[in-house]
Amino acid sequence: MRNGTKLKLKVSNYLKQETIYNVIGTIKGNVEPDRVILIGNHRDSWVFGAVDASSGTSVTTEIARGLSVLLKQGWRPRRTIKICSWGGEEFNLIGSTEWVEQNQKLLTERGVAYINLDIAVGGNYVMRARTSPLFKEITYSWAQKVKDPNAHGSKETIYDLWLERSPSLDSEKPKIYNLFASSDYAFFYNYIGLPCGDYGYWFGYENSSYLYPVYHSQSDTFDWMKRFVDPEFAFHKLMAQFAGGMLLEFADSAILPLSVSYFARALNSSFHILKSLKKFKQHGISLDLLEEAIEKFTNSSTEFENFKSKLTGKERFSVLRRLNDQMSQLEKAFVYPYGLPGKPFSRHVAFSYGGFQNLKPGVASFPGITEAVFRASKSGDWAEVDHQVSIAVNAVLSGKEVLELY
Amino acid sequence: MRNGTKLKLKVSNYLKQETIYNVIGTIKGNVEPDRVILIGNHRDSWVFGAVDASSGTSVTTEIARGLSVLLKQGWRPRRTIKICSWGGEEFNLIGSTEWVEQNQKLLTERGVAYINLDIAVGGNYVMRARTSPLFKEITYSWAQKVKDPNAHGSKETIYDLWLERSPSLDSEKPKIYNLFASSDYAFFYNYIGLPCGDYGYWFGYENSSYLYPVYHSQSDTFDWMKRFVDPEFAFHKLMAQFAGGMLLEFADSAILPLSVSYFARALNSSFHILKSLKKFKQHGISLDLLEEAIEKFTNSSTEFENFKSKLTGKERFSVLRRLNDQMSQLEKAFVYPYGLPGKPFSRHVAFSYGGFQNLKPGVASFPGITEAVFRASKSGDWAEVDHQVSIAVNAVLSGKEVLELY
Repeated sequence: MRNGTKLKLKVSNYLKQETIYNVIGTIKGNVEPDRVILIGNHRDSWVFGAVDASSGTSVTTEIARGLSVLLKQGWRPRRTIKICSWGGEEFNLIGSTEWVEQNQKLLTERGVAYINLDIAVGGNYVMRARTSPLFKEITYSWAQKVKDPNAHGSKETIYDLWLERSPSLDSEKPKIYNLFASSDYAFFYNYIGLPCGDYGYWFGYENSSYLYPVYHSQSDTFDWMKRFVDPEFAFHKLMAQFAGGMLLEFADSAILPLSVSYFARALNSSFHILKSLKKFKQHGISLDLLEEAIEKFTNSSTEFENFKSKLTGKERFSVLRRLNDQMSQLEKAFVYPYGLPGKPFSRHVAFSYGGFQNLKPGVASFPGITEAVFRASKSGDWAEVDHQVSIAVNAVLSGKEVLELY
Repeated sequence: MRNGTKLKLKVSNYLKQETIYNVIGTIKGNVEPDRVILIGNHRDSWVFGAVDASSGTSVTTEIARGLSVLLKQGWRPRRTIKICSWGGEEFNLIGSTEWVEQNQKLLTERGVAYINLDIAVGGNYVMRARTSPLFKEITYSWAQKVKDPNAHGSKETIYDLWLERSPSLDSEKPKIYNLFASSDYAFFYNYIGLPCGDYGYWFGYENSSYLYPVYHSQSDTFDWMKRFVDPEFAFHKLMAQFAGGMLLEFADSAILPLSVSYFARALNSSFHILKSLKKFKQHGISLDLLEEAIEKFTNSSTEFENFKSKLTGKERFSVLRRLNDQMSQLEKAFVYPYGLPGKPFSRHVAFSYGGFQNLKPGVASFPGITEAVFRASKSGDWAEVDHQVSIAVNAVLSGKEVLELY
């Protein structure tokens, strides 16, 4: 466009106030009613939304149906389960955000994990997952348990196909992305540090997954889904088996399936990228204390995992409860109450959306620090960077103390 | 002084950087090592400080000695005990403040109560207490258990003398003041909502207690204490019996001695004062939702106390743990993460220091609201008042949900 060109833009949007609804179903735990696993998805959509949000809603509903069968057989979960149907996701995640803000105290105290199923079936090529590092082990584990309709030869499970079609950078395991701010898990994760996983079966080709072509358009219809994506609804069933199984393990296992060692690994790799930036030294900022804190954290996490691996799940309730609380409180120790500078709702010091997310996809590292570096490069205010480093040091050491054995 | 008078002021202060030390001793609990009772006082003083801080330090040390005797007899507390000696209290409470900030995650999760013993013996007239409403019951209970050197006639215990010499406004019970910001409990209470009590035996006359005359001066010496206040150190002993007994009950009782009904009563009386202000109606601010929330809270607290009163302490661990967690998490539900406007460290929505504290001594009510009213009266910004009311509503409802039975 030439300089001086004038544009006339006609905007036909209108402002309208609407009531939205969150619908929450609760199954009370019979041993630990005060520990809560959540699963859910939003219900609203642009136009018809067969994929976004109805594929997730149908998978969640199918899981709820399965739980009702179990309940009729006399089963009760060990922990409380909450099945959530959010309103207003497409309008800035407003339903889940308000609910988390309103219930932040109880979720911080009693929340264990949240499984999100937005765009649960957005294609039929490969599994796509965004998770907290704490979710990685159980994600891989359930991917190995469920048969995949794309099975061929010796490749039978979700995991086999996932590894074949969307491997991680080192190709040893399937790729899991970091959490972001793209669906209802965002406020759970970035505001209170509740471990989350977000799953869908997606489109893709050549070692990657892609968003479906009719995303957010009027062509996202039941007809499109049935004709081009999942005629037998086999991938819907797969997602219900995968996420439902994971939900049951979270709700019923004596020892929570949260992986502290993956968390330590993620901290270390984030720090590794951070350290590769040359700007810190140039401006007299030391990362030594942060490096030392991460080393201490890593040592504590190793001791914790060693201790955990020796348990059978038949130990006294008080011992198991203590251990489980350490795991479910770990990520919450990374919440800085006042949030990132200028972003009071982004409070996860280690893995909030921000920082390097756009530079290195899949790696979000200490966003408070990296964003401060970005600003300081323009403003020259390097004291803010130093301050953010000290906040990160304290968060890592808090996490370490949460893990320390009694 | 006439207008135009010039004053020459010579200030001899100097700025000096000093290292301060917090000394923390830990006795690990044998049943619930992940629940913590704290007791402590500061160690630093202006000049000699026989009263402030050494009377509290000697009482704390005497309690520690008593615990060491018990430990040698094979006793271990049910919960973890931390005995704290703070540095730098006279310089803006810096030792305890930094420690609480550094350990906020663990204290919020695992902290049950903090007993503070500043100016533990500052006179020989009457007990003086500042506490969270949750501490009132146990405070009265231990005051009734310990014999008072001022005993006369049928008046034998701390409680009897206290009621005689410093009754509350309705004269039915001894006077207990609200917590403030005057000693090391401040950051525990105002920042993370940990229930606290602060105790001393004080000077006084005519139905009240008073600060000792040589406060913060060079005359606060051992000689002064021995000659004029506590020649036999009987009041030091009394304080060790009182606070030590309370500490043991907090550490060992199967059911925590925190009083939810006193808390509900305090909320109601604070609201009563708030409502008496005519400014809200004049400016279209409704307190209806807050009133309704407090009613709901009060109902939940009554149900909770009924349930609690039927327990014997011999119930299953998981039942007791749940109940105790509800009590020790209750006041923390009143923490608003971002703090009062302009006071990010004052985060207790119901009883942080502020608001009416100076208008009606002993009553601190919803400081976020009352301070906003104060500002709005000058600035005309009544929207801020409305915002603070909504923060208070959410805090009260969070507290109600913490108390809801399973």
